[in-house]
Amino acid sequence: MKIALAQLNYHIGNFNSNTEKIKSCIKKAKIQGADLVVFAELAVCGYPPRDFLEFDDFIISSNEAVLEIAKSCKGIAAIVGAPTKNPEFQGKDLYNSAYLLVDGKIRDVRHKTLLPNYDIFDEYRYFEPNKKFNIVEYKGEKIALTICEDLWNIGNDPLYTVNPMDELIGQDPDFIINIAASPFHYDQHVSRKGMLVQNARKYHLPLIYVNHVGAQTELLFDGGSMVIGDNGKVLGQLSFFEEDFAIVDTKNLSSFKRANPLDKYPSATIKTGLIYDALVMGIRNYFQKLGFTNAILGLSGGIDSAVTLVLAADALGYENVVSVLLPSRFSSDHSIDDSLQLVKNLGSPHQIISIEEAFATLQISLKPHFKGLPFGLAEENLQARIRGVILMAMSNKFGYILLNTSNKSEAAVGYGTLYGDMNGGISILGDVYKTQVFELAGYINREKGIIPENIINKPPSAELRPDQKDSDSLPDYEILDQILYQYIELRKGPKELVKMGFDEKIVKRILKLVNTNEYKRYQTPPILRVSPKAFGMGRRMPIVAKYLA
Amino acid sequence: MKIALAQLNYHIGNFNSNTEKIKSCIKKAKIQGADLVVFAELAVCGYPPRDFLEFDDFIISSNEAVLEIAKSCKGIAAIVGAPTKNPEFQGKDLYNSAYLLVDGKIRDVRHKTLLPNYDIFDEYRYFEPNKKFNIVEYKGEKIALTICEDLWNIGNDPLYTVNPMDELIGQDPDFIINIAASPFHYDQHVSRKGMLVQNARKYHLPLIYVNHVGAQTELLFDGGSMVIGDNGKVLGQLSFFEEDFAIVDTKNLSSFKRANPLDKYPSATIKTGLIYDALVMGIRNYFQKLGFTNAILGLSGGIDSAVTLVLAADALGYENVVSVLLPSRFSSDHSIDDSLQLVKNLGSPHQIISIEEAFATLQISLKPHFKGLPFGLAEENLQARIRGVILMAMSNKFGYILLNTSNKSEAAVGYGTLYGDMNGGISILGDVYKTQVFELAGYINREKGIIPENIINKPPSAELRPDQKDSDSLPDYEILDQILYQYIELRKGPKELVKMGFDEKIVKRILKLVNTNEYKRYQTPPILRVSPKAFGMGRRMPIVAKYLA
Repeated sequence: MKIALAQLNYHIGNFNSNTEKIKSCIKKAKIQGADLVVFAELAVCGYPPRDFLEFDDFIISSNEAVLEIAKSCKGIAAIVGAPTKNPEFQGKDLYNSAYLLVDGKIRDVRHKTLLPNYDIFDEYRYFEPNKKFNIVEYKGEKIALTICEDLWNIGNDPLYTVNPMDELIGQDPDFIINIAASPFHYDQHVSRKGMLVQNARKYHLPLIYVNHVGAQTELLFDGGSMVIGDNGKVLGQLSFFEEDFAIVDTKNLSSFKRANPLDKYPSATIKTGLIYDALVMGIRNYFQKLGFTNAILGLSGGIDSAVTLVLAADALGYENVVSVLLPSRFSSDHSIDDSLQLVKNLGSPHQIISIEEAFATLQISLKPHFKGLPFGLAEENLQARIRGVILMAMSNKFGYILLNTSNKSEAAVGYGTLYGDMNGGISILGDVYKTQVFELAGYINREKGIIPENIINKPPSAELRPDQKDSDSLPDYEILDQILYQYIELRKGPKELVKMGFDEKIVKRILKLVNTNEYKRYQTPPILRVSPKAFGMGRRMPIVAKYLA
Repeated sequence: MKIALAQLNYHIGNFNSNTEKIKSCIKKAKIQGADLVVFAELAVCGYPPRDFLEFDDFIISSNEAVLEIAKSCKGIAAIVGAPTKNPEFQGKDLYNSAYLLVDGKIRDVRHKTLLPNYDIFDEYRYFEPNKKFNIVEYKGEKIALTICEDLWNIGNDPLYTVNPMDELIGQDPDFIINIAASPFHYDQHVSRKGMLVQNARKYHLPLIYVNHVGAQTELLFDGGSMVIGDNGKVLGQLSFFEEDFAIVDTKNLSSFKRANPLDKYPSATIKTGLIYDALVMGIRNYFQKLGFTNAILGLSGGIDSAVTLVLAADALGYENVVSVLLPSRFSSDHSIDDSLQLVKNLGSPHQIISIEEAFATLQISLKPHFKGLPFGLAEENLQARIRGVILMAMSNKFGYILLNTSNKSEAAVGYGTLYGDMNGGISILGDVYKTQVFELAGYINREKGIIPENIINKPPSAELRPDQKDSDSLPDYEILDQILYQYIELRKGPKELVKMGFDEKIVKRILKLVNTNEYKRYQTPPILRVSPKAFGMGRRMPIVAKYLA
């Protein structure tokens, strides 16, 4: 049987565009002689639809779209993901399902058994787990049809007490199909492939895996759909970060060949290269799906805004990203010069708007109310907020989306000004530690010097008071980022960190900073997720807690 | 057996303070002759601990606290809620458990079966559901020990396929104890009581119910713990919104008497009175738990900031809430006069800081960049943002927390300025529709005119351009709030709304506004939750979606 893998970028809730995209792909697959075309998990409504699933109107629209897609399945079959109503009296109202569409009709439906409910996943919020296990049959082939997490309960720390393939294997399937919505993080392509290979080997079955691609706000789906032989050999993998399409013949699996999508990255910088491409896709799709074309950002002369600008220029076109330089009395000359050099290198537009006048005026307005207290945090934040006000005014006037340039290290310790430099429609580097931002800058400059060396080499500073440096109040980023990684990604506690050799005082101070700044992160823009534990929907913390604080 | 109901206000992650509070309550109960004292669900760590549960260090600290509490159980037993490790290989790592502590030791542990995972609840994110059903025994009494949701699967639309009491009833228990963390919304006290009464009746057992009280950021726990007879009669209920303590003798249930905590509210305004008290507790606990004493807010002359001020003055003391009047060229005279009258009525401090100078200066700075475009949204937002900047400068300078004064109707349709009037550490009215804000104002003025009538009677306006009124761009709040309620609380779709008689054009426009302003609400402060569906953790929506948008 010839099976087409359709790796597409869906738009949540946009039933018209998703349906058209799916139908035209069915047409293409039919022309190319496929018997069956496979689309991703919840392809019809996009993933994750979140609480829209609680609206009957949304489910009805989804059902209508499925019927319309079914109609186009003549002389070809399709597997598409969509929510279905749970007809039982008890349990959640919906299933997360895979339809088999044949001869213009719904032939069969299978439901997801394992519902991820951790990190960024909330599936048990909406769906009842499947409890009946049956293969589907098509053209004499017996298919173990599974949905994403259904294959993931295979490691050393099983999250679930059931394993769907253990139930299906007794029905003697010919191969496994898995439709997925498995988001990117920089190590996920390795664990995902490992998990799929383990399944193919354990059950001695070929495996066809079709994933989402494209960004849904903070979630970046990298695609990388693949075909694996019954010996666990990966026969071919589709692209990362873009739509792709391929046909595999199950009677002649070894003829399936694809270039390895990792080949484009120099081997020493695979991780950084993946992060770079993921962020570019994240920016591009955020703008596309919201119907915007132009971005604006504040260019400080520091490395974070420089890297953000390059990523945005790559995603949106260099001419569509306006940099605004917002100097104050505390800005060093080289901050301006370096920024000007960068926009010149990119050929992208810039403007210079001094904050001095507004800063002076607001200080005068506030003076009678500040009771003679000395210059301090309020005045530092005031400058950052005036910059935020100016950028938002430009954003409102011209319909640009403001890009947030904060990095993950800053976001973690609260080193940023709410309603100031923490503004933005979307945070580009909020899941990238400062040390990783340096790696991105190196990656950007790997062939030619796009970001001026001076921006990369100078000591990080917020430039909100004379001679300020980040290192005045924070440990070196090499140390800070290690502590943060252990605490945030690996959930190590203070005792474990001290045992690892970190200084106890520093550990306590950093963990306290992380925990007491939860209130700030609550109000930050959505953050493009590239790590296994990003701030935002995947990390849910109480604000008024008093723990390590 | 004499059982003490301990209705306490816990602090998430503050093991020292929770442990001390629990121990001193055990001591009190012992002095008063109780055999057993019952604390709420997850009392030891506070509810909801959210992702702190993923830290081993947190669980270890909780276990240590349980052992310390156990030590104080000599001559008295206690039931306390805490997380426990799941010893099984498969499944989630934790249980949500109830300990029975006797003779200085852990005598028994029971786990929660039904894990709420909807609205504001995420319990299946952390916990494995219980699958073994056993009563606990103490002093010859057989106790069906259940945890919150365990009793909730009794209505017409069962969310779960199991019912723990159906499993336990065969073991012939003498009574039910339920320890809970059931948050407030304005109708919850009715459904909660109904559910408990149904259980007592169905199983013909007395029921002792102990709930959390106090606010945890946005979640407001109202307490209202109670004792119900085996005939379903509520024998007595503890206070709402404050800590409380009572002892019931299971051999003489009918002697248990408490004043009805609803009696304090005039019957026509119970709902509004409950919302008022819930919000006051929410403000008070937010400040207490974060270690702050003083609030600041912008007083516009409108009803939202007026009601917010009164609530904050009640919660924190009138002298601890600074109102800042921030007039511009578009502020009407009466806005200032009415605001001054209000602070005078309350005796609370105020300051006047004109935004005119900063507005003029920023317009000059922006002029060369605005390309001669006419006054518009950018200039309107600019004023709101300058106000935000000034309020945050005062907040930073003096350590005040800024109160957000936006209401739910505005938040729904995006009628507010990000980084402007949407600023604040906590949103007081973000779950209160405009029409309900008027009801709160009426409730506040029920005995004397605290809020000047002019503030209540004038047409709502943002005063950001000449003669602006909310009704210029929005339907009347009576209509708007009904549509919003149907869409947000009841999840009705456009077809259903039109069928109900709302104008189709208005419905489409409002739903589109709600959905396209998700990006703004993503960055709003946490909102004190008083309705069954508040913006924030209980309503999770994709930002880049295109559905009814």
